[in-house]
Amino acid sequence: MAAEASRTSEARRDAVFGRWVVFSPARSRRPTDLKSHAPANPSPGAAGAAAGAPKPSCPFCQGRESECAPEIFRVPAPPDASPWRIRVIENLYPALRRDAEPPAPEEAGEGEATPGERAVVGFGFHDVVIETPRHDVRLWDLDAAGVGDVVLAYARRVRQLMEHPAVKYVQVFKNHGASAGASMAHSHSQMLGTPFVPPSVTTRLNCMKEVFERLGKCSLCEFQSKDILVSETHNFSAIVPFAASYPFEIWIIPRQHSSYFHEIDKDMALDLGSLLRTMLAKLSKQLNDPPFNFMIHSAPFGVSSSCLPYTHWFLQIVPQLSLIGGFEIGSGCYINPVFPEDAAKILRELDC
Amino acid sequence: MAAEASRTSEARRDAVFGRWVVFSPARSRRPTDLKSHAPANPSPGAAGAAAGAPKPSCPFCQGRESECAPEIFRVPAPPDASPWRIRVIENLYPALRRDAEPPAPEEAGEGEATPGERAVVGFGFHDVVIETPRHDVRLWDLDAAGVGDVVLAYARRVRQLMEHPAVKYVQVFKNHGASAGASMAHSHSQMLGTPFVPPSVTTRLNCMKEVFERLGKCSLCEFQSKDILVSETHNFSAIVPFAASYPFEIWIIPRQHSSYFHEIDKDMALDLGSLLRTMLAKLSKQLNDPPFNFMIHSAPFGVSSSCLPYTHWFLQIVPQLSLIGGFEIGSGCYINPVFPEDAAKILRELDC
Repeated sequence: MAAEASRTSEARRDAVFGRWVVFSPARSRRPTDLKSHAPANPSPGAAGAAAGAPKPSCPFCQGRESECAPEIFRVPAPPDASPWRIRVIENLYPALRRDAEPPAPEEAGEGEATPGERAVVGFGFHDVVIETPRHDVRLWDLDAAGVGDVVLAYARRVRQLMEHPAVKYVQVFKNHGASAGASMAHSHSQMLGTPFVPPSVTTRLNCMKEVFERLGKCSLCEFQSKDILVSETHNFSAIVPFAASYPFEIWIIPRQHSSYFHEIDKDMALDLGSLLRTMLAKLSKQLNDPPFNFMIHSAPFGVSSSCLPYTHWFLQIVPQLSLIGGFEIGSGCYINPVFPEDAAKILRELDC
Repeated sequence: MAAEASRTSEARRDAVFGRWVVFSPARSRRPTDLKSHAPANPSPGAAGAAAGAPKPSCPFCQGRESECAPEIFRVPAPPDASPWRIRVIENLYPALRRDAEPPAPEEAGEGEATPGERAVVGFGFHDVVIETPRHDVRLWDLDAAGVGDVVLAYARRVRQLMEHPAVKYVQVFKNHGASAGASMAHSHSQMLGTPFVPPSVTTRLNCMKEVFERLGKCSLCEFQSKDILVSETHNFSAIVPFAASYPFEIWIIPRQHSSYFHEIDKDMALDLGSLLRTMLAKLSKQLNDPPFNFMIHSAPFGVSSSCLPYTHWFLQIVPQLSLIGGFEIGSGCYINPVFPEDAAKILRELDC
């Protein structure tokens, strides 16, 4: 690959988080050789179960619903609910507790604004989205409509959590593979509704605000180069971001400016389902079924209308191929051996 | 442990990075049971080499100096240099390149200030500190003076890098164990001199500035509670920080206000060496020789004198016991199963 061979180290800063990333091709094999050494599912169905059969020890499988924490809703809704396709349930081991006393509105507001050490009760919501009743099905094994329904389930649950006055933000995320933090192999996602605006959200909003005020544009409404584009649909673009922190990181971005993920409609969800499915299949094929995380980045609830022109939601997919060390932890700056243009070209040309 | 049993989830924000951390004891075994499942050195000396003998394949061992990238200095300096105790060398696979064209001063300055996407040549320095000529010796196997000498080598090299007008910051760090990012088993540390101020450094300075302006104090000159103290020397305190992101995280903080690590003198370095050695031994004993990182957080070069009252350097030690998932990557907010007061008590009472 000519482009790849000619590259020399470069540092780039992105316009969304304001993060510096060092691109250092010398530290890597060729991008096309980069594979996961710890595939998330070394051999799907290795337990010897017949295709589609529930795994005896898995409480997320069909038929074991009673062993889970309480259900919030299922898709399709009863009475058409057998068999269900998606279940949204409480997390049995929640990081934040819905039964704790929520912070008083004035306390939370004032606390956010006052700098320094602060402690609040661990109130919040921690939910799980079981994406399929079948143990051996991965999210991207579903069809586009199936992935779209998962997206709609996320959005519906976020809208419910938004109704609670003490919830400031909902972080939707998926961990796939043990080394990406998944404690259950059965395909699922999670969301945490927090009584504070998380630090990365504050950083992102501050950075996008600064870009908007100084350059008069939203950081995500346009991107400079076609070289980082992987795929486009009517409503979304999938790119490898200009200053990707991780090799083969992908962002799926609505093409029309939109601040809140949870306002997604059915047509857009189907479109996103199709593109997300394709991107996950490409990563799995190219990188040997790597562990990965994806995260939805949206605007916090109740921001003033003056923030809306520069907040633009997106979905970030991060394959876990390299280890994080002291440089990254200390500086917040990542070293990425694969240039975004090279990763985008490889993913673009891959047939999935 | 009564204190431990009575704890319920809590969210805390620290006064240095402004990060929220969720403390969730329900998600963990008892703190005293928390151990590394992947010890960094499952059996020291397992290669069968006689104690102190060089490992044939290790270029950091005594006698194989010619296989390394160029040496910058050694301790003790020649002609007393055989055997050497510490060598500072160039990294053979540098993330940033010292032979690249550094950004022009005005370009770098303006670029820092202008928001939005930005790319600069990957200029910088990436050095390695070989802490001992012996393959089977860990940093905390050295005596206090030996660790102090390593600290003095860091400081000397930082002062050298500071002389280069394009270097804005030097991140000193150590990775111990493969899963903490160490590619070589032989005990070593690294430092990267960057042509930009890294994102976490900017966040830290902004947060400490806000605390100073609103509350009139440096975030690190005092801490609220003796419960988080692990150990104290004449010059330093070792604490588990109030809002520790990681279980059993430790900060070693100068007791007198000081902005720049590299201004450390010989007495202080000996004192730090003694305390660092004890803390690493405690973590190794309590947590089954866990992989860990440590990082030195200092002020960027050339900040205005008005910043000095609120910048206070410290050394952060992070054992790698838990996995980072989508919630942490997406939100920048960590979930820690061990309350700082419990971790501090365990470490304080441990005899090392």
